[in-house]
Amino acid sequence: MSPRRFGILLFPGAEELDFVGPWEMLRMWSLYAGGPPECLLVAQQDAPVECAKGMRVLPQCDFATCPPLDALLVPGGQGTRTEVDNPVLVDFVRRQAAQAQVVMSVCTGSLVLHAAGLLQGRRATTHWGMLPRLRTLPGVQVVEERFVQDGPVWSSAGVSAGIDMMLAYIAQVAGADTAGQVQFASEYYPDGIRYGEQPRDPRAPAYVRAG
Amino acid sequence: MSPRRFGILLFPGAEELDFVGPWEMLRMWSLYAGGPPECLLVAQQDAPVECAKGMRVLPQCDFATCPPLDALLVPGGQGTRTEVDNPVLVDFVRRQAAQAQVVMSVCTGSLVLHAAGLLQGRRATTHWGMLPRLRTLPGVQVVEERFVQDGPVWSSAGVSAGIDMMLAYIAQVAGADTAGQVQFASEYYPDGIRYGEQPRDPRAPAYVRAG
Repeated sequence: MSPRRFGILLFPGAEELDFVGPWEMLRMWSLYAGGPPECLLVAQQDAPVECAKGMRVLPQCDFATCPPLDALLVPGGQGTRTEVDNPVLVDFVRRQAAQAQVVMSVCTGSLVLHAAGLLQGRRATTHWGMLPRLRTLPGVQVVEERFVQDGPVWSSAGVSAGIDMMLAYIAQVAGADTAGQVQFASEYYPDGIRYGEQPRDPRAPAYVRAG
Repeated sequence: MSPRRFGILLFPGAEELDFVGPWEMLRMWSLYAGGPPECLLVAQQDAPVECAKGMRVLPQCDFATCPPLDALLVPGGQGTRTEVDNPVLVDFVRRQAAQAQVVMSVCTGSLVLHAAGLLQGRRATTHWGMLPRLRTLPGVQVVEERFVQDGPVWSSAGVSAGIDMMLAYIAQVAGADTAGQVQFASEYYPDGIRYGEQPRDPRAPAYVRAG
């Protein structure tokens, strides 16, 4: 069932592409292909949010005014290191997740999902640099895939991987042709070039090393 | 020669991923791999800019306070339809380009470059939906590639293509290993899935139909 109201969480130090990649796919779906009519950027306070790389974004609602969401996406970024210890934010995620159809994370957003108790007994992933850290946390089975779905919880690898996850989610909920419309509108046909030797780095996740 | 000061233009109706994709690559380069120390989001006025899909972003400087740039990227989006007739913005682009090393466009940002006289006698591209329009404009040779460089002018196809262009630019200026560091940090190893029949649409650009 397609969600009607889709929220994307913002917080200080959220990584820009982590949320703008999925946001772009979501909004293309929303505007041109029958996707969620309401898409909300939500932050703890209704004030500019300074992201990890210095871009400042204005949220569309704060925790107090945010209505119940059918879907929630949590981006990653340096800010997750402190937000996992922010009880107001973690509680917001837990509370929204309790009645949402689906909860997603991009990159180190999975640490926030874990802090909210949402990864217990589930498979999940994160940015390659945080795979060792996620493995130390109890109750989660860490996988090295581009993205992974476990029931209502989707998680993706680092930064850009949220785009691939959102397209896969759209394909699952609304069909491949709808995902194709979104992909065509955003011209998401990457050239696939791999620069440097980094894909063979021992820290690279399995899906990259196998690629 | 690596640019020291890199500007990204914002305007009402700029497409979010058009500028945030390259911004993320640029900032990863800047912070972790010796890229431009100064990266500026610049808009005509120092006030929130409402983007094409509803996200509001605060610029870091306005036209009056923007210093001379070594590089300038112009995103696309619905807003370019009106900005090509905004003499203040077009003049800003022309003026900055006159002393910059490189000027880039993403998506329909190429229409702005054309309005500023920067595509005369040059090969360029745009979003597939605007290829017919770009072909009607005088002096530009339109190509259907993911991105194209013609001397100091780089242009990319739609929305997401700016990511590929920026990585290719980094590889050219700073080498493949540096581009690899940026790609690894942003985990930009797309799954390459093509949804639906759209890649075979007759309006799809040659590089997509050939893919």
